[in-house]
Amino acid sequence: MSKLVIVGTVAFDAIETPFGKTDKILGGSGSFIGLAASQFKVDSAIVSVVGGDFPQSYLDLLSDRSIDISGIEIVEDGKTFFWSGLYHNDMNSRDTLVTELNVLADFQPVVPENYRDAKVVMLGNLHPMTQMSVLDQMNQKPQLVILDTMNFWMDNALEDLYTVMKRIDVITINDEEARQLTGEYSLVVAARKIQEMGPKYVVIKKGEHGALLFHDDNVFYAPALPLEEVFDPTGAGDTFAGGFAGYLAKTEDTSFENMKNAVIYGSTLASFCVEKFGAERMLELSRAEVFHRLQDFKNLTQFEIELS
Amino acid sequence: MSKLVIVGTVAFDAIETPFGKTDKILGGSGSFIGLAASQFKVDSAIVSVVGGDFPQSYLDLLSDRSIDISGIEIVEDGKTFFWSGLYHNDMNSRDTLVTELNVLADFQPVVPENYRDAKVVMLGNLHPMTQMSVLDQMNQKPQLVILDTMNFWMDNALEDLYTVMKRIDVITINDEEARQLTGEYSLVVAARKIQEMGPKYVVIKKGEHGALLFHDDNVFYAPALPLEEVFDPTGAGDTFAGGFAGYLAKTEDTSFENMKNAVIYGSTLASFCVEKFGAERMLELSRAEVFHRLQDFKNLTQFEIELS
Repeated sequence: MSKLVIVGTVAFDAIETPFGKTDKILGGSGSFIGLAASQFKVDSAIVSVVGGDFPQSYLDLLSDRSIDISGIEIVEDGKTFFWSGLYHNDMNSRDTLVTELNVLADFQPVVPENYRDAKVVMLGNLHPMTQMSVLDQMNQKPQLVILDTMNFWMDNALEDLYTVMKRIDVITINDEEARQLTGEYSLVVAARKIQEMGPKYVVIKKGEHGALLFHDDNVFYAPALPLEEVFDPTGAGDTFAGGFAGYLAKTEDTSFENMKNAVIYGSTLASFCVEKFGAERMLELSRAEVFHRLQDFKNLTQFEIELS
Repeated sequence: MSKLVIVGTVAFDAIETPFGKTDKILGGSGSFIGLAASQFKVDSAIVSVVGGDFPQSYLDLLSDRSIDISGIEIVEDGKTFFWSGLYHNDMNSRDTLVTELNVLADFQPVVPENYRDAKVVMLGNLHPMTQMSVLDQMNQKPQLVILDTMNFWMDNALEDLYTVMKRIDVITINDEEARQLTGEYSLVVAARKIQEMGPKYVVIKKGEHGALLFHDDNVFYAPALPLEEVFDPTGAGDTFAGGFAGYLAKTEDTSFENMKNAVIYGSTLASFCVEKFGAERMLELSRAEVFHRLQDFKNLTQFEIELS
């Protein structure tokens, strides 16, 4: 089993959906990634920053799941990153109501000494230069570097994004972002162009339509589990990435065949995440439930046509 | 092997896409369904109507593939149904430029005598009462009745659609139409409501995002093959339905497990249909190509997670 370094936000979210609304609750890409990866009992550490207003109980939720939080800096006189969003009726579009960077504005990630030899690094959605500084702190090139990003960095830090993309193995990105990054409508063509930018594996997330994994001429497709209702999509993409990274860190096998399984685990965990507000569902998730849902995914996708 | 009755249009299409445009070419739901089903060497008959302007060579294309065309009425002094459409750059939306019903306006389908005992009936997209009259002509209730429809009939003949839906086993419908028919955004909930309207199997087509098969609490998902480019989507839905119906007629097995295979065959054949204008690709399709693409579908979707 490999060590896993996760960099991302640990934050407050306030969410409003057609089903209700929350006060400030535990959020942030680092939290969702860490909770998903913790399903695999890997040694993982979150590198992040919070303010003095961040409850110890939230940090305890992470360390209770054996996540190393020594890399989460606490700026006592600062305030924690805060995001608030409103989802529309179709749950596929949202308005950002509040973004307060607070302590994130000056965030300088520091990877704990005992994690600088980690074989797997998951770079959650942050400024590309912040993601890069994590790679610069590793003792050697990790076996697998996974990067998540978003359109905001394409609009505001494209050259920096290009630079960090040259040093990663896997990128996770949504369909619209893949199109924006390449100028190509076809996701097949977009994925090929992204591979030319650096990462040899490209995961394109399509929300309710699932996710595609590309590598050379190989493609794998994992659907999203069809759900009666999506209660709150917040964190689903990060949970997907955390499941993907956690499974690969556990199995230490980065073959395309095994990455297929990682995508299925990512989709499986994401399907739980959307069932309750924020990280609530992930905090109560049992091994038996995950097992059962993996079986659902098999039933959903596996068929028996004899080719003869 | 069962006999298969297909009712649908045999028509002229004129298509314009970002890649080019055609004059009047062979089109119509009956043609696409028939050509797809002919891949399975089943005994099939198309029930339709054309005008005196319809070229014998187009009819020959169908009968050359062992499709019984004795149920295609030729109205010598009438003109053939004509549709013309313009696809936009994303190929997901189109404008209808021309719809000339012509001989279709007075179409009274007549099922050939020797097909009135067919076990499988595929009702292509037509007025629900026209679809119903085909069922009324069968000697007994067929083993499997599959119906395709569209939003136009929901807007203009909803009560008739409800009536025919009570007499069918499988409905194929796209995602927006499923939402319109039920008023439900969640496709899981929509599929359940549609089952309450009659058909015990519901196939929801999601275009480039694949297709879902629902029955009771079971769900199966077949993705669309990710393609470098979609050249012309015309007929893809009908080709899907034809592959689905043809496979079930050939195998005479209407279990959920076998319907999964039928969905995969439908998706496979549809993935060819969009590669060229109209039915062009379907007319030149070899068994080896289908075989090879089924293997692509396996690679795309099958994975090996041991659940222990």
